[in-house]
Amino acid sequence: MAFYAGKKVLIIGGLGFIGSNLAHALVQAGATLSIVDARLEDHGANDFNLSGIADQVSVTMADVRDRAAMTKAVSEQAVIFNIAGQTSHVDSMVEPWLDNDINTRGQLVLLEACRAVNSEVKVVYCGTRAQYGAPQYTPVDEHCPMLPIDIYGVDKLAGELYHFLYQKICGLRAVSLRVNNTYGPRHQMKHAKYGVQNYLLRLALEGKEISVFGDGNQQRDLNYVDDVVQAFLLAGEKEEAVGQAFNLGGQEPLTFVELVAKLIQYAGSGSYKHVPYPPDRAKIETGDFVADIRKAQKILGWEPKVSLDDGLKKTVEFYRQFKQHYF
Amino acid sequence: MAFYAGKKVLIIGGLGFIGSNLAHALVQAGATLSIVDARLEDHGANDFNLSGIADQVSVTMADVRDRAAMTKAVSEQAVIFNIAGQTSHVDSMVEPWLDNDINTRGQLVLLEACRAVNSEVKVVYCGTRAQYGAPQYTPVDEHCPMLPIDIYGVDKLAGELYHFLYQKICGLRAVSLRVNNTYGPRHQMKHAKYGVQNYLLRLALEGKEISVFGDGNQQRDLNYVDDVVQAFLLAGEKEEAVGQAFNLGGQEPLTFVELVAKLIQYAGSGSYKHVPYPPDRAKIETGDFVADIRKAQKILGWEPKVSLDDGLKKTVEFYRQFKQHYF
Repeated sequence: MAFYAGKKVLIIGGLGFIGSNLAHALVQAGATLSIVDARLEDHGANDFNLSGIADQVSVTMADVRDRAAMTKAVSEQAVIFNIAGQTSHVDSMVEPWLDNDINTRGQLVLLEACRAVNSEVKVVYCGTRAQYGAPQYTPVDEHCPMLPIDIYGVDKLAGELYHFLYQKICGLRAVSLRVNNTYGPRHQMKHAKYGVQNYLLRLALEGKEISVFGDGNQQRDLNYVDDVVQAFLLAGEKEEAVGQAFNLGGQEPLTFVELVAKLIQYAGSGSYKHVPYPPDRAKIETGDFVADIRKAQKILGWEPKVSLDDGLKKTVEFYRQFKQHYF
Repeated sequence: MAFYAGKKVLIIGGLGFIGSNLAHALVQAGATLSIVDARLEDHGANDFNLSGIADQVSVTMADVRDRAAMTKAVSEQAVIFNIAGQTSHVDSMVEPWLDNDINTRGQLVLLEACRAVNSEVKVVYCGTRAQYGAPQYTPVDEHCPMLPIDIYGVDKLAGELYHFLYQKICGLRAVSLRVNNTYGPRHQMKHAKYGVQNYLLRLALEGKEISVFGDGNQQRDLNYVDDVVQAFLLAGEKEEAVGQAFNLGGQEPLTFVELVAKLIQYAGSGSYKHVPYPPDRAKIETGDFVADIRKAQKILGWEPKVSLDDGLKKTVEFYRQFKQHYF
């Protein structure tokens, strides 16, 4: 990734799952990397995620909602990866305030900071499949109606729309990646509130029984985190991507219960049983979700390269080695 | 409207344009009416708007963002008309904070108040044509992609989506009316930031010259406020409307410059000239906007009944008589 060599790059939310994996790739590519992270409790930030590159990254503890900090952080950056967010679907339905505050107002704080001091910067926004809610058809392309079924999805949709508006307001060069279910190293493993596939792997590794809600036959489409990182790097580089949103998705969909069986297979332990949906989960279940990724293939030149089998092997290996930092 | 006789009804934003006209209709229908209004400066609230019914309405000064006030206000109501909002497209682009705070967080405050004390109440939300941005086709039906071109449109879209989510969260019976350009008595006439057609009528009545941006050939679709009030009353009554959004629109579209000519005709004074678009207006110009109102006709049984000519005559008459309260 010669594009990033010597470039000033900022990751907002860089201590979390996708952000920190992206940080490793950017350091390797020779970027001059800064990270801002609020280190909100239980939100996925983990200092160990920068293990091996910590001395090559400037890390500032600051919240995306802090205008002074954002104005300072975005100044003079060539590319900003905006990955900060409240990401629990369930929490957003129990108590909408934090989600609304981070995922709508916080986005405006960041964008206003850019408008003030770096108005035409490239910003890659981390969107989500939750923007589509229970999709009206699959595979889901970028024209599929966006009718979120949780507060999180509404707020992330608003955040994405804000980004594209700032192109009009001040020339900002925004791109959105609507991220699908992503798994891999450096995900938080303390609870199932986001990235459930990661937490279930922990349960399997600990030899526990996994509860599959309902029949588990809903289709899921997974990406190994390295593939997602590649998509972010390409989105940050390509000018053709400006003003565009792209769905991400994996090589082959599988059912949720098939995924659980694979987690157990690669963990070498654990089991599962079917249980009825808890009401709070039933409300936000999207049903089948399979992404149509042709737009990302065509415009970003992106391809998911890591098979689920290879990805799960690497993931199991990582958490076996470093579980004291995550479990 | 026998449905409303003796019913407890709340209008949030009831001192403004649509809210106060709705209040007059509800008092006439025999509702037990409460109004909450924040009386934000320059936002359209006008005590004179309740002239003639003030002694038959309970008015509380409170902001939709005030949770304690909203919890008190929504309790025991049978129908809530949620018409409070920041409504200036231009202001939302200059300074997004107030728009985001009222039109997203404020909506959650109201909805959480309902969830706490009146979870299955009927709520009629005042949506907007701005949710569609520059529409991908006309006439615009409710399936047209919602890609707002201003912060106001994004926030109003989020507010509408929140309302429908609370049906899932707590059984709330929400309806949204996506209001088009509305004119008539009781609109604020101090500035052109919202309801420009109303402000231009003032300029004509004062014999001034109206600036038409560009060629003025963009199509507009207007509703007289009494027709909009009827739509709100029907939406509050009909159970078939729950979970649905409806576009409102008039009898016949016309171009903006034709509208200006009509304003001058009925005012009996004033003139117009073409001027280049100011940059802030060009950015948020939607182009042609004509609504497809067949869904509202079918499900609400609604019909715009007041012709533009009749509506403008009544409007001119009202402001001639009461201009000291508005100009």
